[in-house]
Amino acid sequence: MAMAPSSSLFTYSFKEGMCSPETKTSNKNLICNYANLTRKKLGCSGTIYLRHPRFFHSENSPKVEHRERESNRNGILCRALKTKNPPSFTVGKTFQLDDIIEAQQFDRDILNAIFEVARDMEKIEKNSSGSQILKGYLMATLFYEPSTRTRLSFESAMKRLGGEVLTTENAREFSSAAKGETLEDTVRTVEGYSDIIVMRHFECGAAKRAAATAGIPIINAGDGPGQHPTQALLDVYTIEREIGKLDGIKVGLVGDLANGRTVRSLAYLLAKYKDVKIYFVSPDVVKMKDDIKDYLTSMGVEWEESADLMDVANKCDVVYQTRIQRERFGERTDLYEEARGKYIVDSRVLEVMPKHAVVMHPLPRLDEITVDVDADPRAAYFRQAKNGLYIRMALLKLLLLGW
Amino acid sequence: MAMAPSSSLFTYSFKEGMCSPETKTSNKNLICNYANLTRKKLGCSGTIYLRHPRFFHSENSPKVEHRERESNRNGILCRALKTKNPPSFTVGKTFQLDDIIEAQQFDRDILNAIFEVARDMEKIEKNSSGSQILKGYLMATLFYEPSTRTRLSFESAMKRLGGEVLTTENAREFSSAAKGETLEDTVRTVEGYSDIIVMRHFECGAAKRAAATAGIPIINAGDGPGQHPTQALLDVYTIEREIGKLDGIKVGLVGDLANGRTVRSLAYLLAKYKDVKIYFVSPDVVKMKDDIKDYLTSMGVEWEESADLMDVANKCDVVYQTRIQRERFGERTDLYEEARGKYIVDSRVLEVMPKHAVVMHPLPRLDEITVDVDADPRAAYFRQAKNGLYIRMALLKLLLLGW
Amino acid sequence: MAMAPSSSLFTYSFKEGMCSPETKTSNKNLICNYANLTRKKLGCSGTIYLRHPRFFHSENSPKVEHRERESNRNGILCRALKTKNPPSFTVGKTFQLDDIIEAQQFDRDILNAIFEVARDMEKIEKNSSGSQILKGYLMATLFYEPSTRTRLSFESAMKRLGGEVLTTENAREFSSAAKGETLEDTVRTVEGYSDIIVMRHFECGAAKRAAATAGIPIINAGDGPGQHPTQALLDVYTIEREIGKLDGIKVGLVGDLANGRTVRSLAYLLAKYKDVKIYFVSPDVVKMKDDIKDYLTSMGVEWEESADLMDVANKCDVVYQTRIQRERFGERTDLYEEARGKYIVDSRVLEVMPKHAVVMHPLPRLDEITVDVDADPRAAYFRQAKNGLYIRMALLKLLLLGW
Repeated sequence: MAMAPSSSLFTYSFKEGMCSPETKTSNKNLICNYANLTRKKLGCSGTIYLRHPRFFHSENSPKVEHRERESNRNGILCRALKTKNPPSFTVGKTFQLDDIIEAQQFDRDILNAIFEVARDMEKIEKNSSGSQILKGYLMATLFYEPSTRTRLSFESAMKRLGGEVLTTENAREFSSAAKGETLEDTVRTVEGYSDIIVMRHFECGAAKRAAATAGIPIINAGDGPGQHPTQALLDVYTIEREIGKLDGIKVGLVGDLANGRTVRSLAYLLAKYKDVKIYFVSPDVVKMKDDIKDYLTSMGVEWEESADLMDVANKCDVVYQTRIQRERFGERTDLYEEARGKYIVDSRVLEVMPKHAVVMHPLPRLDEITVDVDADPRAAYFRQAKNGLYIRMALLKLLLLGW
Repeated sequence: MAMAPSSSLFTYSFKEGMCSPETKTSNKNLICNYANLTRKKLGCSGTIYLRHPRFFHSENSPKVEHRERESNRNGILCRALKTKNPPSFTVGKTFQLDDIIEAQQFDRDILNAIFEVARDMEKIEKNSSGSQILKGYLMATLFYEPSTRTRLSFESAMKRLGGEVLTTENAREFSSAAKGETLEDTVRTVEGYSDIIVMRHFECGAAKRAAATAGIPIINAGDGPGQHPTQALLDVYTIEREIGKLDGIKVGLVGDLANGRTVRSLAYLLAKYKDVKIYFVSPDVVKMKDDIKDYLTSMGVEWEESADLMDVANKCDVVYQTRIQRERFGERTDLYEEARGKYIVDSRVLEVMPKHAVVMHPLPRLDEITVDVDADPRAAYFRQAKNGLYIRMALLKLLLLGW
Repeated sequence: MAMAPSSSLFTYSFKEGMCSPETKTSNKNLICNYANLTRKKLGCSGTIYLRHPRFFHSENSPKVEHRERESNRNGILCRALKTKNPPSFTVGKTFQLDDIIEAQQFDRDILNAIFEVARDMEKIEKNSSGSQILKGYLMATLFYEPSTRTRLSFESAMKRLGGEVLTTENAREFSSAAKGETLEDTVRTVEGYSDIIVMRHFECGAAKRAAATAGIPIINAGDGPGQHPTQALLDVYTIEREIGKLDGIKVGLVGDLANGRTVRSLAYLLAKYKDVKIYFVSPDVVKMKDDIKDYLTSMGVEWEESADLMDVANKCDVVYQTRIQRERFGERTDLYEEARGKYIVDSRVLEVMPKHAVVMHPLPRLDEITVDVDADPRAAYFRQAKNGLYIRMALLKLLLLGW
């Protein structure tokens, strides 16, 4: 069963493929068995069971009608956001998602609606003395591996909205995990102390396990080789903000396309838009895996591989550069050195790029973008990092208060 | 001199025994010389010297009459909370304790009064958008060894009441302690930056030393092999919440009874209630020490040792399981493996347990309680962890604002 | 060109000398080329470009007239705060400094004005339920090496004023720095999440590099062997609070004068006051370097070296003791042991000290001040640590809101 564009259906198999990119998965598996990521503890009565008592205190969280339908088709629980009941993005309505676990949860409509909230968040952050809409809410940042950038971004997002934060910077070493406690037990404890958990873990699938356990929302802030969905969202948001559109854009993905989860997720999400063209520019050892290429093909997205960065830069709206990750090369530092020097974004690349185009990068950057590029207005990567704040503000607001 | 039930008298010797369980202490030493843990810098004029200027700003902290009496009897400073002046738990009155250092500070009346506040805290946490009663107060979590669970619980408690937190997750390695600064000097500095200090330390007696130095309240969040009084309180609170009473209960303490400070403190506090029966179920190598057994006997508490967990589970209101701590066995992993497999709480144990009974555990748990037990409503350990929040909210409120 | 007392002119060369005290610098280099530390992105139109949109929301941050003059003399950009335009310390006016990087940024007038704000901060901290003047502002503590004392002091300062904090306790190990990201890139990211950055770094000059990059204020909380300007300010503030004056004081600097950046900065700042006399008392291996001595001479400050602590203690208003830093001696523990035992402040020193005099110490202290000194009212070091809070509150207020 092939997926239609704009569908919110997605598969666990595909996701598994994202975790272990070596595993090639065929589109035949693209069937929906992901209902466990839909609204938790959903009652059969047609009303949503709001999970946390704290939800009730807010005038923004009235009891809402159940707007989604779950059905058991072909023995597999399916969720079709868009078939009979159009999605509701009305102010005051609950958010469609319980947790933010992976890019596959998002379709085009929900992305657009989230981006609109993110734009509101830009205004809140820029023009006022700070919002208080999340006052009284507590976010726990449960980080099993350090990621200062991501953690600060989430914590800033929460605090800019008046919320509070509990922090564990290195849960792997410091917490009961060291004594052998399971992730599930840790989550059951931490959910007693907070209203939402932002989790970073070193194992693929950890966030999903946490979400299956927790009665409060979980946001995946990266689970090892798995997903980092808020990064994927901020990348798409940045393209829209910088280029002004998503349909019809041309994007060059450059660098480590085999291991970089950001480019994989970005390619996945771009497939939801019309007439997108994607160019893959990477050293041979870190080429984009077939699962994503097959998926793009199945979605009708044009893509091609190129060894000529200048040519691609000349044609694209977005040059998305990534870091070659040394840790992936093990002992083969010769291969690493060869790979990292191959495609550098520098002033020569800027020269051939269109005036309206931008250079993006998930950061941190080493020397794959030279420092002199920073001064060019088309260097969008620090604005991109900032957009992460707005996207995270939007998601925190949506998960805790609804639309 | 034997202690009467419900007495608030306790001894330093006994406490020392708690720190080094090997040291056998006799009841002869159970005399009161603990006056240095009573209200700090107590004036002779009959009015309490409120230690921190910040206390004065609150309308909840009026000058209060001195309601306690100190007397020097038999050459030893004694404090008798209950003799002539009945304790006052009236709203607006100051809390009887300056610091929370060890289980011995609590008698039955003060426990009951604290539990009533904790129940109020449950309501605050559940039904409102968060209290602001501690707004403007700063808690410093000075952790010399990591304990994410305990730290997050305290920080959540403070923030749920509108207070703010300064965090040191690993003071031992990170702070001036590494340069050789004494604990006392660190406390003198940190008390200048905060209104209350929650301290975790690797040395027995550290919290007491801190309390002797500080002019602001100290809460002991665990001092090595010493005490962890808030854990002891939340355990008793949980039993009352789950079983509905404390007098007349039967409790089975299971697992590592030699090294587990939680079971030792719990046994101590249970002795304050009437007709309590305690069963000790543990591998031979980690049996309950004589000091606690002698103390229970002296307090008229029935206890017995048993090797039959099923039999005990069948009779008890509470099965309190604990983790066998590998680190206590050193090289003898054979002994560890033998000990840890001996008494497991699993579905067979649940089968024989009364319907009203509960399984408790201080967490983290490894496999001494099997995961399938979690689904049983009698599995109370995650509710127990949550109760830690309410107890800590109550103590923070009481220490900073009074009753 | 020699500097006149009270001048705000200072030199990069001198600063470099502070970073690498071995480098002897001559007064000939005392020319002003430090304009890059003046108000950032200064427009030519005579109005200051306020860097952060959040500045605009406050009624305390009106657009202000450009009150400083920049001129290019002898090919070197010069800034003379006091020549034609007298400094303005009027409530509502913007602060003269964009960043707090080093002691050389402060002249006598600005010190006095800051101290007045610090005294207001004492009142705020002591008498009210906490100020909310920085509500809505976010401070990021970007610490590349741990310094719990300094970090907690800044975080307390921010929270006492109603502001919020993002914390990185060990950015060196945890952040993208480990992956090779430059400091500049990190700062560009973090400034997107916060309104002010307090930075501790292990490299001299790091704070200045951060300030050159950032569009929001940077406060240097210590940059390796370089500067720690807020410590220098709190030291001078403490002398004024304790002794009641700065002109005409006699100060004995004791201990490690070669490596201690606090005594070096303090000597520098004291030179701004009249009739100051400074005594250097140190083991031979850690004597005060010539650059500071030459500077004091050039500023007309009397100084002398002495090997007799008792004699100096007898004459001085302030005995400023410092720790002999073991790490500076490498393998030569014999030299370390000899040096550390040489000048101890103990009860015998107290006996010869004038009644009005005080003992100061930047802390942590080992045994260079004996514990029995603590009880003497002249032991000012814990009050000194507390003054750090007021100074930091004042600087945060000034940088974010202006006078």
